[in-house]
Amino acid sequence: MSFPRLARDLADVGRRFYQRGWVLGTSGNFSAVASARPLTLCITPSAAHKGQLKAADFLPIDDAGRVRGRTRGKPSAETLLHLEIVRARGAGAVLHTHSVWATMLSDRHLADGGLAIEGFEMLKGLEGVSSHQHREWVPIVPNDQDMTRLAVVTETRLDAEPEAHAFLLRRHGLYTWGRTIAEAERHVEILEFLLEAMGRR
Amino acid sequence: MSFPRLARDLADVGRRFYQRGWVLGTSGNFSAVASARPLTLCITPSAAHKGQLKAADFLPIDDAGRVRGRTRGKPSAETLLHLEIVRARGAGAVLHTHSVWATMLSDRHLADGGLAIEGFEMLKGLEGVSSHQHREWVPIVPNDQDMTRLAVVTETRLDAEPEAHAFLLRRHGLYTWGRTIAEAERHVEILEFLLEAMGRR
Amino acid sequence: MSFPRLARDLADVGRRFYQRGWVLGTSGNFSAVASARPLTLCITPSAAHKGQLKAADFLPIDDAGRVRGRTRGKPSAETLLHLEIVRARGAGAVLHTHSVWATMLSDRHLADGGLAIEGFEMLKGLEGVSSHQHREWVPIVPNDQDMTRLAVVTETRLDAEPEAHAFLLRRHGLYTWGRTIAEAERHVEILEFLLEAMGRR
Amino acid sequence: MSFPRLARDLADVGRRFYQRGWVLGTSGNFSAVASARPLTLCITPSAAHKGQLKAADFLPIDDAGRVRGRTRGKPSAETLLHLEIVRARGAGAVLHTHSVWATMLSDRHLADGGLAIEGFEMLKGLEGVSSHQHREWVPIVPNDQDMTRLAVVTETRLDAEPEAHAFLLRRHGLYTWGRTIAEAERHVEILEFLLEAMGRR
Repeated sequence: MSFPRLARDLADVGRRFYQRGWVLGTSGNFSAVASARPLTLCITPSAAHKGQLKAADFLPIDDAGRVRGRTRGKPSAETLLHLEIVRARGAGAVLHTHSVWATMLSDRHLADGGLAIEGFEMLKGLEGVSSHQHREWVPIVPNDQDMTRLAVVTETRLDAEPEAHAFLLRRHGLYTWGRTIAEAERHVEILEFLLEAMGRR
Repeated sequence: MSFPRLARDLADVGRRFYQRGWVLGTSGNFSAVASARPLTLCITPSAAHKGQLKAADFLPIDDAGRVRGRTRGKPSAETLLHLEIVRARGAGAVLHTHSVWATMLSDRHLADGGLAIEGFEMLKGLEGVSSHQHREWVPIVPNDQDMTRLAVVTETRLDAEPEAHAFLLRRHGLYTWGRTIAEAERHVEILEFLLEAMGRR
Repeated sequence: MSFPRLARDLADVGRRFYQRGWVLGTSGNFSAVASARPLTLCITPSAAHKGQLKAADFLPIDDAGRVRGRTRGKPSAETLLHLEIVRARGAGAVLHTHSVWATMLSDRHLADGGLAIEGFEMLKGLEGVSSHQHREWVPIVPNDQDMTRLAVVTETRLDAEPEAHAFLLRRHGLYTWGRTIAEAERHVEILEFLLEAMGRR
Repeated sequence: MSFPRLARDLADVGRRFYQRGWVLGTSGNFSAVASARPLTLCITPSAAHKGQLKAADFLPIDDAGRVRGRTRGKPSAETLLHLEIVRARGAGAVLHTHSVWATMLSDRHLADGGLAIEGFEMLKGLEGVSSHQHREWVPIVPNDQDMTRLAVVTETRLDAEPEAHAFLLRRHGLYTWGRTIAEAERHVEILEFLLEAMGRR
């Protein structure tokens, strides 16, 4: 898909997430692969209001996180995590949300290293899952302002948990991905739903 | 009512349910009877986003769950349940939602075989109920990925509970129905409201 | 204000309340005084979807609850309560909502005969209240399907609590009123907010 | 920015806050600096519905809280607090919301004199904060109907807590600010999110 189309689709995702309160206060960030070789990622700019994104706000970045060509602007501070996920999972789109329930559960279950979600029909919406009896393990990674270090830790965790569809950053939020933006958005909805259901118990 | 009109009305229902968070992650499915003899059911396609349905997405199926005519597409995985409800209850429309509260309560009350809701004015909105003193018994059916088996279990439960306006699938969600789409939507709103009220106690 | 204008304003109120989940499942009903002498009340029809009201749906009724002139349709089942409130309080508009929190608190505090709300800044939005130190007593009336009897009980309670801005019907919902539709809507928002705040403690 | 543009932007903020239930019942009030010398503040009128504001509803006031020129209307009852914040913090915009969680937490933590929020990624959205390890202290001020006295108390607290990005009025709500309306709105979203996350623990 073309860069402008990806940007438009991600902007629409932002409006829907904003309405649900999942990207308040300029939190959250989104990306999609515009070209695989050489890698060009279409990503949200740093500190943007996620409910009012325009396609022109998005930035093209290369595999080192540098803005391509003559485009001006600063990409999301968490660009390295997006690149890491694209590499580790072959993802076509990466979405990061920041909900109240993700914030709370990532804190509550940090000592366990993650959160197991099992026995819910909703799990079947995760790519490759065919039964509610599936046990999804959502790793929790400690938060860190050093993005290079956080990217390395994330890489290690993603390698160690090859089945995981997502991970949580402690008191920070959810990262998930998909082959397409639609698949990644479906994963966000499923996981945010399940986090709320776990959190309310 | 014509097939396109039913499809359009069900698509509108989907937008309203999506906004309330009752059909996230492509969960939920909807159907309405387009013709009684021979039976043609207008049903949501498998794995569709329920907040963005177009009338053209809906599929006509026969009483065996086969897509009629030359239409392409795969009907909802839970088509057999819809057909069972149409047969057992003479329903004109069947709606399945997947809310956080339904997920939680269907789990909490599984051992009781169901959930009693009694003494609420809101119950009067259920067809044929004329007093808040009504006691609604909502059966809970264990979840199952074998749809043929689940349809048989559902049939047995529906026969055993002829007064029930709805049932829950464990950790899966709510099924309810009505003579029309509007009646079925009213039943969804009433039952989701009551499940939230019970869940928050 | 003219009957059509009142009807249009009440329909708009319905859309806003529907979005907040305060009138699900055709619950709730609204009225406004179109003429004082002889009394004509503009009222919602029975069993209407409150998020999709059109001005033409509203019915003119007289002081005995009869539909005026040649208009067809059945007024809200709770018409007598509206008339009682108009008489007892001189209200220009009466709004009845049916939220989860009102349902729960009206049950929890029934034995006390009512619910005291005190010390909240939000109380200042109630007509005639000038300090957060105000103590609002919200009477709770047992629910009853006999509307004549319920209207008599309500009349007695309204007379006994001349300061009350609202009352709750047990497991049923909130009644409040105002000189205008805007004032009554403000009272609904304030009281629903306070019920939620009390309920979450 | 021109007065009409500020008024339009604040009206848009009002619509977004209204949808989230943060300014129900005409609660809340907003202002922005239209001119620094002499000070002209663009402020919401008293008792307005915050979801239906029009640019023409806003009032220009001077540094004593008097409406400038020939404009008619009564400015927000809390005008003195807005002026105090503009003076103490050099704010370009001041936003006051009135949510359920702010109401509850301002009550629960009154005896502590404030509420500490620490370790959340969301804190980084507050101006000047660069790490989730930041500890934000949100002072809580007792509510008071005497606005002159409340303004003095607020001034004292703002001076004593020069790092604070916001404060709570007990059982009343949140005050925060920013150099621009966008920054102040971001602060509201961040703080309301964090109050909900703290409140649900």
